[in-house]
Amino acid sequence: MGENTYVSGIEHVGLSEDGQRVRILDQTRLPNREVYKEVGTAEECYTAIKRLEVRGAPCIGIFAGYAMYVIARQVKADSLMDWAGKVREEGSRLKSARPTAVNLSWAVERVLAAMDSRLAGGREAALYAMKTESLAIHEEDIGMCKRIAEYGLELVKAGDGILTHCNAGPLATSLYGTALGPILLGQERGVHFRVFADETRPLLQGARLTSYELVRAGVDVTLICDNMASMVMKNGWVQACFVGCDRVAANGDFANKIGTSGVAILARHYHIPFYTLGPASTIDMDCPTGADIKIELREPEEIKNMWYKEPMALPEVKCFNPAFDVTDHELVTAIVTDRGIVYPPFKENLQRLFAKQD
Amino acid sequence: MGENTYVSGIEHVGLSEDGQRVRILDQTRLPNREVYKEVGTAEECYTAIKRLEVRGAPCIGIFAGYAMYVIARQVKADSLMDWAGKVREEGSRLKSARPTAVNLSWAVERVLAAMDSRLAGGREAALYAMKTESLAIHEEDIGMCKRIAEYGLELVKAGDGILTHCNAGPLATSLYGTALGPILLGQERGVHFRVFADETRPLLQGARLTSYELVRAGVDVTLICDNMASMVMKNGWVQACFVGCDRVAANGDFANKIGTSGVAILARHYHIPFYTLGPASTIDMDCPTGADIKIELREPEEIKNMWYKEPMALPEVKCFNPAFDVTDHELVTAIVTDRGIVYPPFKENLQRLFAKQD
Repeated sequence: MGENTYVSGIEHVGLSEDGQRVRILDQTRLPNREVYKEVGTAEECYTAIKRLEVRGAPCIGIFAGYAMYVIARQVKADSLMDWAGKVREEGSRLKSARPTAVNLSWAVERVLAAMDSRLAGGREAALYAMKTESLAIHEEDIGMCKRIAEYGLELVKAGDGILTHCNAGPLATSLYGTALGPILLGQERGVHFRVFADETRPLLQGARLTSYELVRAGVDVTLICDNMASMVMKNGWVQACFVGCDRVAANGDFANKIGTSGVAILARHYHIPFYTLGPASTIDMDCPTGADIKIELREPEEIKNMWYKEPMALPEVKCFNPAFDVTDHELVTAIVTDRGIVYPPFKENLQRLFAKQD
Repeated sequence: MGENTYVSGIEHVGLSEDGQRVRILDQTRLPNREVYKEVGTAEECYTAIKRLEVRGAPCIGIFAGYAMYVIARQVKADSLMDWAGKVREEGSRLKSARPTAVNLSWAVERVLAAMDSRLAGGREAALYAMKTESLAIHEEDIGMCKRIAEYGLELVKAGDGILTHCNAGPLATSLYGTALGPILLGQERGVHFRVFADETRPLLQGARLTSYELVRAGVDVTLICDNMASMVMKNGWVQACFVGCDRVAANGDFANKIGTSGVAILARHYHIPFYTLGPASTIDMDCPTGADIKIELREPEEIKNMWYKEPMALPEVKCFNPAFDVTDHELVTAIVTDRGIVYPPFKENLQRLFAKQD
């Protein structure tokens, strides 16, 4: 496997050896240090999501599955029903750590449903079902990544320039990631691309994570500041944009890292195809449009202070710091899912996607 | 004048008390420390421009005028003609510190022309002419700022949201600045705006300088990361974009801080008027289009390392780091100059502007 082992081989989220805690690679310490830590209590699990130690919608889902199992093991109660009720409360609390990503709720609900399905068999049977379900979520994510990568690879050709925003690579999911999937699968097959990675302020996931993953995988990557994307596109260096998605509405509008909508508008201006890649679990058919997606607002400190030797703005300066924005479906060329590529009209074709396979 | 003194009263570039050096506010130390320093040798003056201790196209022009006078005083030579030749060489060297801004060349040439015009009168007469010319450049800049502010103020109304990119405020010029002129003049007259300042990666002039100037002036300013402009516009919070310009081509294309073209494309998408504000000296009628403007490429370190406690990307990561980009004239609503507001068609109307008053 050589130096590419990292890409498809890293175990950045999973159960600890004794199966009582969740082991994670602390993504806030990258790219300078690869620090693994184990979290076990409900508070530690909540904080790991909140502080972005685990991040990326599918990865949060995988983590939340394991976390629910680990937390449920610790919950003490007088009766089985009391126990299940308290576990459900912990689930609600965990879901509140980040409001935008649908995968978090989805994974918590899946593991709780597994608990309910085996509750009649007692606490140990319910816990066993939760563990099995959380492992299944992880397994399915690996399969999902493979299928998205295959579909996405059909959309580009060797030598193409691909621009990506934020991080939707292995660290955000499992295996190849979503938006980086076609690039990494291509790399394994000797189909090489030239990638431009937006650094993605304020938390610099593009600089810290995406360029890290791509360099480790041997991919030709150039890091740019977010505001340089327009010039890179104008220079003719970009043949496609690949971005992830945190929640896709039923009409094809989707929420993703702040700045994604700007990339989509630039791509439209320069006549460059713009794709979002994500698992079908990211599509929320109960959410009619992007206007119905709640956008998380984060602390001004991230813009004004974080990581710098000294403040970058006066303390009195106000900040607006949304974590995500919504990209209008009219700006999207296609949505690449593990169930296939969805083209406009999205409302009809997303319905067809689910009707076909559900 | 109270707390607003700063805005129109700060002397951030000028001759030192003994008239032998140039005194500057080191803009790389803002917003946390107001450090003044004096530069005198040719090397110090070159470095002050190169390191962005003085920056902003008009401010570089003012500085370069004083610098040429100060440098010329030190040049030793066997004859008057030898002296003048060496001063011209120093001028060429100074002009090479930053290739994009037209004001740097323009100011150097003006002061050299003043030297030539009085050279027959001897070295002291020539030096006196250079000093007078450098003071005139500064005086004219103050008048220019006042006129641009007046013209720009006609384009907005009280309560409007105004988005700006990089820094084209007092620190980039004299008095009010260019893009911030209408805002600061309005503030003096009780006409208040709500300003959104792009932080402007990689060097964060928006965070360090623009939000600093506006807070000091009591203006309602909200700092955002560059990639948040799309969402702020979509939310309906922006009624106009005001940006500066480093060089305007004869067809209305203009170079300004990297990311400006992206702001213009977003503004067009959201149907928001987009204005560039600058003195007529920024218009280069010998430069046919934006494609003829040379764009400065800067060090990867600015993206990967600068100011952070630790590196933000792996050392192996490649970067693309252009200092400016070119905004297509088709995206520009109007060019606001000290000689009036120029609307499309720009090629014809810019010619008319110069024909009228030259």
